[in-house]
Amino acid sequence: MLKVPEHQVAGHIARDGKLGPLVDDEGRFFKPLQGDSRGEHEAKFYDSFSSNKKVPDHIHRYFPVYHGTQLVEASDGSGKLPHLVLEDVVSGYSNPSVMDVKIGSRTWYPDVSEEYFKKCIKKDRDTTTVSLGFRVSGFKIFDHQELSFWRPEKKLVLGFNADGARSALRKFVSSNSSADSNSIPNCAFASEVYGGILTQLLELKAWFETQTLNHFNSCSILMVYENESILMKGGDDAQALLRAQVKLVDFAHVLEGNGVIDHNFLGGLCSFIKFIKDILQSLDERDDETDTSQLENGN
Amino acid sequence: MLKVPEHQVAGHIARDGKLGPLVDDEGRFFKPLQGDSRGEHEAKFYDSFSSNKKVPDHIHRYFPVYHGTQLVEASDGSGKLPHLVLEDVVSGYSNPSVMDVKIGSRTWYPDVSEEYFKKCIKKDRDTTTVSLGFRVSGFKIFDHQELSFWRPEKKLVLGFNADGARSALRKFVSSNSSADSNSIPNCAFASEVYGGILTQLLELKAWFETQTLNHFNSCSILMVYENESILMKGGDDAQALLRAQVKLVDFAHVLEGNGVIDHNFLGGLCSFIKFIKDILQSLDERDDETDTSQLENGN
Repeated sequence: MLKVPEHQVAGHIARDGKLGPLVDDEGRFFKPLQGDSRGEHEAKFYDSFSSNKKVPDHIHRYFPVYHGTQLVEASDGSGKLPHLVLEDVVSGYSNPSVMDVKIGSRTWYPDVSEEYFKKCIKKDRDTTTVSLGFRVSGFKIFDHQELSFWRPEKKLVLGFNADGARSALRKFVSSNSSADSNSIPNCAFASEVYGGILTQLLELKAWFETQTLNHFNSCSILMVYENESILMKGGDDAQALLRAQVKLVDFAHVLEGNGVIDHNFLGGLCSFIKFIKDILQSLDERDDETDTSQLENGN
Repeated sequence: MLKVPEHQVAGHIARDGKLGPLVDDEGRFFKPLQGDSRGEHEAKFYDSFSSNKKVPDHIHRYFPVYHGTQLVEASDGSGKLPHLVLEDVVSGYSNPSVMDVKIGSRTWYPDVSEEYFKKCIKKDRDTTTVSLGFRVSGFKIFDHQELSFWRPEKKLVLGFNADGARSALRKFVSSNSSADSNSIPNCAFASEVYGGILTQLLELKAWFETQTLNHFNSCSILMVYENESILMKGGDDAQALLRAQVKLVDFAHVLEGNGVIDHNFLGGLCSFIKFIKDILQSLDERDDETDTSQLENGN
């Protein structure tokens, strides 16, 4: 039995009779092939990339496992349609916090149609894509006070400026009320979550500095972690239980690299890494201040 | 006495009654302040940057030394005009080979006028700026067969595709005839020149990964080295005599960083570094092949 994914935060959603991805109970994600050859393109990419021996194993694990394509009943009731069959990245989590960040300072690329170019560059300029080299596409956070998920409106997310993006990245790893825009994010999980995420981003960065296989136009980094387990267990097991992980998703616009690195993705990735590092550093400074004030109080 | 710079390879040239930079005999470079406030902007940048203690010394040395502004007789005969007074980067060289590479996958930036945006993005798409993250703006090579300089036409240089850029970077460090487009560049100086250049580029890259002081829009990397001395001396002194150096130039479009790294410059720089590394690696492979064929011949 296929159902609508509970934790999808960006892209087409299979609701209200619309076409979108579906998941099963066995950890598989079914993504309908988009009609205008983009779906075919993404299937071809997964097909060749997933078996490409030039890609190191430690890089392969940042990509969802690919199980081929399959005809399944589409979510919009239009009958059986070909779907990509992928690993459902969040299937092992109970209450995952998820964020989708589209990487790159442009989503268009050489040789696209003028129509597509104009559509992309308008959105790139209207969001933080041009200014920051990435844009938050969507996210959901498990709220520990409400014991439910908070998921901001798409319009709000796409309207972020630099401060909005920075604030969202802080809220994403905080345990205090996310929906209340006046509360200051406490960054309770920042050290464990972004510590783990940063290690993975740096591994990806090192690969992007040399790889010339593909250019990952309009591709996203998905960050996932589990909040609940920290509250339940905490202590020494906390880091292991957080299972903070990074996956790359959305390959409908991937091109051959032709001997050139993906400088667009790499530049944006480095900018994103700096945002993550800044949050980690702000924690150190906070701790230092606490230490100092304790010293001043004679403790 | 001011004169027209002999080794300028890009930008406005002070010839035929046109306005352009001048040099004196004491190693100073006089750049007229551009009228539309860009000149003022560049002067302000030099003013604050050159005395900025947050910029490490080893980074300051990649920027031309700044000596303030001065009223001097303009090259177009329009009387005394304010000029930036800078270090003339090539003044210590006899026959320098020089290349100007504009870094970044775009030369426009947020909040420019629509007119400027359209002008820039057209040129960015027509050159390798978008595809490679950099474009060769101009170069001159000392030709050891003709004992003179070869300097390709601006139109030819701006028409380079990826292969053209790669080929120009190989010719730039070759001793065989540069003007003859059929000859295969021998990359005679590649190891020494690009070895030294690469060390400097990697130092800049490390700084750009963290610096959020400025965004260096439309800024160029100037590569300079001396050919003549290699031929005259060679041997162990060769590397020291080459004096391959990197400078950053052209700051009329520099903006404040506002806490964000210059992902546009960094991405392009990483792409350029990969091109330089590829040339160095091709030399290793050539050497390996020579070794192997010597072994096969029983030597």
